Amino acid sequence: MNNEKVQIFDTTLRDGEQVPGCKLNTEQKLVIAARLDLLGVDVIEAGFPISSPGDFKSVQEIAKIVENATVCGLTRSVKKDIEVAAEALKYAKKPRIHTGIGTSDSHIKYKFNSTREQIIERAVAAVKYAKSFVEDVEFYAEDAGRTDNEFLARVCEAVIKAGATVLNIPDTTGYCLPEQYGAKMKFLKENVRGIDKAILSCHCHNDLGLATANSIAGVINGARQIECTINGLGERAGNTSLEEVVMILRQHPDLKLDTNIDTTLLYSTSLLVSDSMSMPVQPNKAIVGANAFAHSSGIHQDGVIKNRETYEIIDPKEVGVTESAIVLTARSGRAALAYRAKNVGYELTKLQLDEVYQEFLKFADTRKEVKDDDIHTILKRCSVYKEIVA
Amino acid sequence: MNNEKVQIFDTTLRDGEQVPGCKLNTEQKLVIAARLDLLGVDVIEAGFPISSPGDFKSVQEIAKIVENATVCGLTRSVKKDIEVAAEALKYAKKPRIHTGIGTSDSHIKYKFNSTREQIIERAVAAVKYAKSFVEDVEFYAEDAGRTDNEFLARVCEAVIKAGATVLNIPDTTGYCLPEQYGAKMKFLKENVRGIDKAILSCHCHNDLGLATANSIAGVINGARQIECTINGLGERAGNTSLEEVVMILRQHPDLKLDTNIDTTLLYSTSLLVSDSMSMPVQPNKAIVGANAFAHSSGIHQDGVIKNRETYEIIDPKEVGVTESAIVLTARSGRAALAYRAKNVGYELTKLQLDEVYQEFLKFADTRKEVKDDDIHTILKRCSVYKEIVA
Repeated sequence: MNNEKVQIFDTTLRDGEQVPGCKLNTEQKLVIAARLDLLGVDVIEAGFPISSPGDFKSVQEIAKIVENATVCGLTRSVKKDIEVAAEALKYAKKPRIHTGIGTSDSHIKYKFNSTREQIIERAVAAVKYAKSFVEDVEFYAEDAGRTDNEFLARVCEAVIKAGATVLNIPDTTGYCLPEQYGAKMKFLKENVRGIDKAILSCHCHNDLGLATANSIAGVINGARQIECTINGLGERAGNTSLEEVVMILRQHPDLKLDTNIDTTLLYSTSLLVSDSMSMPVQPNKAIVGANAFAHSSGIHQDGVIKNRETYEIIDPKEVGVTESAIVLTARSGRAALAYRAKNVGYELTKLQLDEVYQEFLKFADTRKEVKDDDIHTILKRCSVYKEIVA
Repeated sequence: MNNEKVQIFDTTLRDGEQVPGCKLNTEQKLVIAARLDLLGVDVIEAGFPISSPGDFKSVQEIAKIVENATVCGLTRSVKKDIEVAAEALKYAKKPRIHTGIGTSDSHIKYKFNSTREQIIERAVAAVKYAKSFVEDVEFYAEDAGRTDNEFLARVCEAVIKAGATVLNIPDTTGYCLPEQYGAKMKFLKENVRGIDKAILSCHCHNDLGLATANSIAGVINGARQIECTINGLGERAGNTSLEEVVMILRQHPDLKLDTNIDTTLLYSTSLLVSDSMSMPVQPNKAIVGANAFAHSSGIHQDGVIKNRETYEIIDPKEVGVTESAIVLTARSGRAALAYRAKNVGYELTKLQLDEVYQEFLKFADTRKEVKDDDIHTILKRCSVYKEIVA
């Protein structure tokens, strides 16, 4: 394959873990970090070392055990933050410091009570200081989604000159439409001097349900890193879902972009994170939800039984799910009933099926779901039963 | 406001209800239908009348009680389906029959073992037959997402001529990228003769996490109806989330599009549907998730306390959530602690806060979340406690 690679920057252990109720102890974090490494993510953001002693220790321990991925620690544009992050990352094979500052007028005014010029100075100073500890320095322009593009380009130019290797362009509030976020990336790609020395990175939030689409718009327009989390965990409505962006690139070869992810580990990784953090994944979650590959309506089931691709674009095995379940409900059709009846040992003729299906509908109208056991019950109620088991 | 209206077609009771485990009885459906009518949806797809006697009855009862919305019943391009749907919709103030057939080569070949010409004939016959019962006939071109645009345009022309008032262009497998889905709508808008006599409708599935973005791309390119469900329920990874598309149009006035939805009822409607169907909404679900408006990281909490708009694009009240919770965890900063301490009666000076914050961090590192009660415990451990309560 000649596809260009998009780096997957997983922030489950930082942006995901700061969610109410998702706190993990160091041991749990180590299990997840090892799994992310196996999954093939390129960067693991392990935590925000200055934020608490527990977080510092976790980043340090993760840095020791990760074999392949870059290990990254978050900081503000504050000297002490950067020193502590560098210390926590001391044992990483490939350390990265992630530093930055708010660049939108709203952030500059209300959060920092500062000016645009001062913000650029602080950004440059932070990158230079981080660079004195590690080679790989990522800069985030917080609230870039609402930052004026001309000013954002100036910030990017300045931090690249100071040594930044990655430029994170977060849509912090999850406000952008895909067209807008894509256009922002395109503007930076075309207007920032020295842009080829750094990688543009998408960091999108899901407040309007657009994080995945925005990240894809970002890489279509020149970004080459996506920041994301398992199950789309994160502040508020969460971050971009790792499993969604990875499968979109895999399913759309025309984009000529791919990742290093071993997709067959996606489902089990989703379960591990959901269990560790006690954060349920809704059944209708894309790729990793319990129903993501379940077909229950008659029309759909009939189509799937005739040819899987009629309704299924992803083979469930590809993401580590062993079978797409044909679930029987009052909405199911004859084909699904015949299929499941066959699975439990009854080969029905078309004529037999006609009667059995009527019994099935009466039965199914009183239940949420018809199980294999129920099929025996239904069959016994039919006049053709003797004939079937003969 | 001079915004053009996008019709909201809710299919929670049809596409949502056919999900494994989501089956409702007629009484539950009536409660939800009444709520959808109050919420301001333009069309309620109440069921698929021919699919089972229970579904027929539900559609009939819903048709009787809905005051404002159009009530719609699904059919295949089959005479009997259409007759039964017409019968079920007999008492509706504004009835609509939704009929259609698969138009992609995959559907034509594997599902119908038919040809393109025959499919057009069947589509036209179905629309004409439905039209003999009701004025308002919506046609779906199943798997339109994977249907060749030229052929799709021919189908659309033919069914408009036969009297279709709405053209549903479903991305049945959830495969399209927003650019592709938008381009498809644009192509139809520009190439179908008589297109102004019908409304183009988006019906997107969420298999790759793109249903919301695709629907928005659809209306940007000329569609004027979105088919969606509460909480994004539906087959597999579900349908477009009603709450997401409605809030995107509300939050992006530049698009000059809006809906008739009373957004202050979104959160309670989400809870009603989630409870009735026993389908959990994940905490990180956009707009209606339990954490959608919760801020727990120190940086974010500080920003929100200084100015809500720093991190929040939607006022939670606008969607019926009474307060954005400032949740205290080991990731929280001084500002959040001071804010919550003040809420429970302690006004801390900056110096006092320094000590209390250190105690707070030690405490928080052992907990998932720090509650109001814990704040008293933490304060009692501080040497400044006497001073504070003096």
